[in-house]
Amino acid sequence: MAHLRIALAQTNPTVGDLTGNAGKLVAWTREAADRGAHLVVFTEMFLTGYPVEDLVLRTSFVDASIRTLEETAVRLREEGLGELPVVVGYVDRAGLAPRVGQPKGAPLDAAAVLWRGEVVTRTAKHHLPNYGVFDEYRYFVRGDRLPIFRLHGVDVAVAVCEDLWQDGGPVAVVGQAGAGLLVAPNASPYEKEKDDVRLELCARRAREAGCALVYVNQVGGQDELVFDGDSIVVDASGELVARAGQFREELLTVDLDLPESAAEPGRFPYDAGDGSTITVDRIVLSSEPVAPYPVRPATVADRPELPAEVYSALVLAVRDYVAKNGFQSVILGLSGGIDSALTATIAADAIGPERVHVVLMPSRYSSDHSVGDAEELVRRQGLNARTVPIADIVDAFEKEIDLSGLAAENLQARVRGMILMGLSNEHGHLVLTTGNKSELATGYSTLYGDSAGGFAPIKDVPKTMVWELSRWRNAHTDPSFLLRAERPIPENSITKEPSAELRPDQRDTDSLPPYEVLDRLLDDYVEKDMGSAELIAAGHDPDLVTRVIRLVDLAEYKRRQYPPGPKITPKNFGRDRRLPITNRWREST
Amino acid sequence: MAHLRIALAQTNPTVGDLTGNAGKLVAWTREAADRGAHLVVFTEMFLTGYPVEDLVLRTSFVDASIRTLEETAVRLREEGLGELPVVVGYVDRAGLAPRVGQPKGAPLDAAAVLWRGEVVTRTAKHHLPNYGVFDEYRYFVRGDRLPIFRLHGVDVAVAVCEDLWQDGGPVAVVGQAGAGLLVAPNASPYEKEKDDVRLELCARRAREAGCALVYVNQVGGQDELVFDGDSIVVDASGELVARAGQFREELLTVDLDLPESAAEPGRFPYDAGDGSTITVDRIVLSSEPVAPYPVRPATVADRPELPAEVYSALVLAVRDYVAKNGFQSVILGLSGGIDSALTATIAADAIGPERVHVVLMPSRYSSDHSVGDAEELVRRQGLNARTVPIADIVDAFEKEIDLSGLAAENLQARVRGMILMGLSNEHGHLVLTTGNKSELATGYSTLYGDSAGGFAPIKDVPKTMVWELSRWRNAHTDPSFLLRAERPIPENSITKEPSAELRPDQRDTDSLPPYEVLDRLLDDYVEKDMGSAELIAAGHDPDLVTRVIRLVDLAEYKRRQYPPGPKITPKNFGRDRRLPITNRWREST
Repeated sequence: MAHLRIALAQTNPTVGDLTGNAGKLVAWTREAADRGAHLVVFTEMFLTGYPVEDLVLRTSFVDASIRTLEETAVRLREEGLGELPVVVGYVDRAGLAPRVGQPKGAPLDAAAVLWRGEVVTRTAKHHLPNYGVFDEYRYFVRGDRLPIFRLHGVDVAVAVCEDLWQDGGPVAVVGQAGAGLLVAPNASPYEKEKDDVRLELCARRAREAGCALVYVNQVGGQDELVFDGDSIVVDASGELVARAGQFREELLTVDLDLPESAAEPGRFPYDAGDGSTITVDRIVLSSEPVAPYPVRPATVADRPELPAEVYSALVLAVRDYVAKNGFQSVILGLSGGIDSALTATIAADAIGPERVHVVLMPSRYSSDHSVGDAEELVRRQGLNARTVPIADIVDAFEKEIDLSGLAAENLQARVRGMILMGLSNEHGHLVLTTGNKSELATGYSTLYGDSAGGFAPIKDVPKTMVWELSRWRNAHTDPSFLLRAERPIPENSITKEPSAELRPDQRDTDSLPPYEVLDRLLDDYVEKDMGSAELIAAGHDPDLVTRVIRLVDLAEYKRRQYPPGPKITPKNFGRDRRLPITNRWREST
Repeated sequence: MAHLRIALAQTNPTVGDLTGNAGKLVAWTREAADRGAHLVVFTEMFLTGYPVEDLVLRTSFVDASIRTLEETAVRLREEGLGELPVVVGYVDRAGLAPRVGQPKGAPLDAAAVLWRGEVVTRTAKHHLPNYGVFDEYRYFVRGDRLPIFRLHGVDVAVAVCEDLWQDGGPVAVVGQAGAGLLVAPNASPYEKEKDDVRLELCARRAREAGCALVYVNQVGGQDELVFDGDSIVVDASGELVARAGQFREELLTVDLDLPESAAEPGRFPYDAGDGSTITVDRIVLSSEPVAPYPVRPATVADRPELPAEVYSALVLAVRDYVAKNGFQSVILGLSGGIDSALTATIAADAIGPERVHVVLMPSRYSSDHSVGDAEELVRRQGLNARTVPIADIVDAFEKEIDLSGLAAENLQARVRGMILMGLSNEHGHLVLTTGNKSELATGYSTLYGDSAGGFAPIKDVPKTMVWELSRWRNAHTDPSFLLRAERPIPENSITKEPSAELRPDQRDTDSLPPYEVLDRLLDDYVEKDMGSAELIAAGHDPDLVTRVIRLVDLAEYKRRQYPPGPKITPKNFGRDRRLPITNRWREST
């Protein structure tokens, strides 16, 4: 047996900020060296950030990624860190001849080992995910190598992210070829309760590979994704050894007892069990085991309960969206209802109440309690507030055009949206929208009205969970939250009956079933893709099934209508060309 | 040699309208029978329409597709058409066990042969495109069969769309196994001058397969795609034999001399040359060649010149978007400038001037010639027009909030957008936006202002092409255009200097380079993914390169900002869940 201290660099890179990410790599490697680590593992595509979308099709971007990797290896040596091997993700290219449908430049979702100023081995993800938020067949070609480098007598294999999730491929080859440790850089987005799935997966793959597994995951918000960290170490039997926290950067070190190896170096092809061949590339960095040293106990972070987990995800998402896009402040409309109250609270927790601007925009239909509840929230949290009545503006429109019913209701919502966008354009605040998932799903929302803005913190939160998160936040806090108020949300906003207040005595239940019923149905229809027969068989009311399916599909088409237009060139904006929002890459630098 | 008369059904299906599409199949098959055809070939996924996006993940939708296929076979026999074999695309399923990342239900982009009331053979697309507008790894699993059916002594192979575009796979297997004819149902979206590429491709694949090739393509608008038809028949040497028109439905019949075969029926595996195995399934429908009959000369439709081609694509896109979404009319703002003039003209050509509503919305900065040019266009075309001055509404906003510079300019554009949306909500018109690609690319547009609407006809048309199309339309017409006016666009709208008229004496060239310079640069940057060094090497001005790249990337991020929000469930709306807009499928039916 040999001993190794492994450092898991659970980091928050910024897409396109190659210089900043490389600087962070050097700083964290120094910290790992100070803690006596023998190996540092960073996340998938750490140098470029993840996901980079169409940037990867730009030759200059891939050039910059490869150049940054090589310069970073040199810099580590120059700063006295060359003896500590670093595993890090970046973007490389496969050098294949162009063919129809192959991503331009044949990019690779790559990982490399840096040591003594050199890039000593390179590999790339073999299984490309193309489901959910992933579109990797659009961006990458498959890797077909498995590097195994000997470090102080231990054979360490490297596989990237999705290669853990799919059967066959590099992990299967680790099992055939033999290694003492498998390290996996990841960029695995948060999804509620995914931590349970990940641990089970790591345990299974460790047993399949026949060795310990170090799973290092990205943390932080990136556009509409949030990465939660939750990095994991399991031993060869699949037992959990160490675990990092969620939603925070962390350099987790762990001491492992690992088998020594004397396998022959060289290149060896293996049948990967998925119809492809993978070449194992064995190299030796150092054969001598490290001298015995005092082992430290491993840390296993607690798993938070569900509302805490979701709330922390939302706070981190807002914080990083604001920071990575270079905003200093946010602005949102405060109605007195629970959706805007929760959104304001998340924002205050993310960036501090002094950077949150709220606008009360009462209309002729706003109730006294709405204004009162909004003012009470401002008072409790110390937000920047102003009031802009909308009645005169609505009147000015109605003098020019006759609108009735829904058209008149939408007008009020749009006047509010325009006020927020105007203040945003004038003062540079990011507009947060306050719609929840139940509303958005059923179209209980106005296009260019309450849906106008730059970021939608609770867009993916069903209404019943909006209440749950609000009650949880009134009872709990966390050191990472910047809002210091006790019970930041007025109780009346949580308990009162929901209303859009766009006509007299309006209630959500005029148009929608109770949210407890609606949210269960939406979950089965939207998340589980059940058809109407399945929904009815699952116990949902048949009339309601028909009605809600119609609402959801109609709302979806309306959302999609902004703004398609016929395609006549290779790249129409929208579907054909996609760049990350929170991106720091500039062609001209 | 045997003779066959093949009918190419170049049709315009509607996504989700299984009943309507099946009805059209029967009607067109009857017409083909009347013309003495021995085989009818419909397009890719004709029964469901293409593309169906997330509908394909719904069990009930795939069930309905398969049921419709089988019922259609029976109906053809019942209506006396059972002896005429029909090749048609639909959605099927592969029956694979679920695994991580595999599309739910393992759907297939399938094609079948209907004959004597039965589905006599089924196949599915092998190569799944996942570039440009295609995301097929998200929706389908690969097919691994190649059916070859003997019809009147001729062996006819069937391959679907992308299988023609990629090396290896079914077409390579046709070459090995031997067939007398290869028929290919397609749904290949329009792109300018793609017709040249298609002909070259068909010729090459015919030579590779060693037999004649019948390429049948969809026609019609579907969301942001336009399919142009352009169906092609080439002989075994790759020579063009027949060609259908673009942008119109057409039943093209062609008489072919084809080799007779006596190959053994049965199933035979072949190495497909792309790492996979494809099973050839040979069946016999009829061995006896048809008796000699009088052959008709083949028709080869003329290719239109470029402005005619693009203009026809835009007219068809608008016509089908309106019709397939169930709208009766459109509304747009008319400024007197060329973009709104061209958009109105396209709309009038698509659905008739009596269904086009325009709103003149002069502000304090609108010039006399703007109003005059807009009124002249209304007069020439006979559109429904009204005038809504915006000054008082803008004043009402400015009384409540102080806005300056760009924020004040945006306010005017947003007031106009709200007026159009209000009239749309009140009267049910579809709002057309009038932004061109050069403006959208550089962000010379207001979010929720001029970009607010349901469809953007010239979103993908650079400004220089806006002028070119306008001049072309003033000099030409086409029987499919519904506008009968001579020179429908006022000359002054074409020749005057472009201005947004959001402040006194504003000109586009205050903020942008001349469009001739800008459009060349945008083409190289956006369509060709050139980096800054490549752009400068290609002769673009270095300062302009830096400035335009910054504008384009910033505009792209702003577009993307509407409306991402953090993902916490399996399916956030937007990136994770996508349904076609122009869809007639209803769960509840």
